[in-house]
Amino acid sequence: MMSRPAAVVLLSGGVDSATVAAQALADGFDVSALSFRYGQRHAAELDAATRVAHALGLARRLVLDIDLRPIGGSALTADLPVPTDRPTADMGSDIPVTYVPARNTIFLSLALAWAEVLGAQDIFIGANALDYSGYPDCRPEYLRAFETLANLATRAGVEGRRFTVHAPLLHLTKAEIVRRGTALGVDYAVTVSCYAPDADGAACGRCDACRLRRKGFEEAGLPDPTRYRT
Amino acid sequence: MMSRPAAVVLLSGGVDSATVAAQALADGFDVSALSFRYGQRHAAELDAATRVAHALGLARRLVLDIDLRPIGGSALTADLPVPTDRPTADMGSDIPVTYVPARNTIFLSLALAWAEVLGAQDIFIGANALDYSGYPDCRPEYLRAFETLANLATRAGVEGRRFTVHAPLLHLTKAEIVRRGTALGVDYAVTVSCYAPDADGAACGRCDACRLRRKGFEEAGLPDPTRYRT
Repeated sequence: MMSRPAAVVLLSGGVDSATVAAQALADGFDVSALSFRYGQRHAAELDAATRVAHALGLARRLVLDIDLRPIGGSALTADLPVPTDRPTADMGSDIPVTYVPARNTIFLSLALAWAEVLGAQDIFIGANALDYSGYPDCRPEYLRAFETLANLATRAGVEGRRFTVHAPLLHLTKAEIVRRGTALGVDYAVTVSCYAPDADGAACGRCDACRLRRKGFEEAGLPDPTRYRT
Repeated sequence: MMSRPAAVVLLSGGVDSATVAAQALADGFDVSALSFRYGQRHAAELDAATRVAHALGLARRLVLDIDLRPIGGSALTADLPVPTDRPTADMGSDIPVTYVPARNTIFLSLALAWAEVLGAQDIFIGANALDYSGYPDCRPEYLRAFETLANLATRAGVEGRRFTVHAPLLHLTKAEIVRRGTALGVDYAVTVSCYAPDADGAACGRCDACRLRRKGFEEAGLPDPTRYRT
């Protein structure tokens, strides 16, 4: 039996990255999951990432400490209010205050470093260009540019190894994502989406992430296992 | 009088980045210096970066904590021996063990994030393709690829702001660098190059960085103010 190729999956603990990790496993990869303690207010997502990694039986997990708060500029790492009760149809029309400057570039750079050390050529990210088109670093042309960079940036690239950035959810709706994940056996009860969960992990039900999640499960005709406060 | 445009300069505390910071000031930029506590063994370089920032009177300084040691893969962040007594002519022929996987990509990503928050369009890096051509992420084609990525990755890029990555030392020899820095008034006594300095800051004189530095000052016909152990 051939050994499975190594892959690094960015794992946040939300619906998208849990689905991507399950997809990478189903595609035959030996999955190493990378998460970040970056000063996000919703640290509950790191516990969720740990639960997802266990539930999927991932081979390897690394949590890097990289405090982005001194850089500022985002409601996710500062004391800016997170918007609530926005119609989901409005979410793609601007770049929200929850945008973290260059976050995907920072996270993909660190995934690239780990991939190089692990001998992996494949990096998976739960980027989505549809539900949340406001984030510039979720666009297909951005991801292709990172791939080009990765192959120039590394010893591995110089030696002829080609990196691929996989974003299998890029063009899926949230409903399609939860359907696919459910088919792959993902237990969404262990994931967290909310930008501002309670101390005991209950979701607010009102931030953009909660609203997109709820709508996705509704449209998929699947039960959302999240505990909502409202 | 027009206000000076903001720029982010990656400042390590070595000869190259000190020269670049002086160059950015001379070019009329309002310089914000970014340094990293990334688990490097030669933490003396952070003290040097602080001295350089003070000596040049830089407006703003940020030191980010980002421990790269869990990723591994480099003699600069692990307990691998640093090579010594290598002829400088050999240093460009391979990628040395002091290569840190994807380091410039990680550092430039964080510089990009800070630049976006500061409203800066210009990022300066002391990359050099000549003395140390073994590092893949010091090549001109790599830097152009990062620029392309930066403009796709950010809200600023989407809104039409163009980022430029300046690497003014890219094609200079170490001798040309120290000559330029000296002309710009850089006090190299406050910089540190050594990969393995003493507890009291004395340089080993034998690692690649020490040998390149020594050779540079010699060829420039300038006194090297470094305290060497050997």
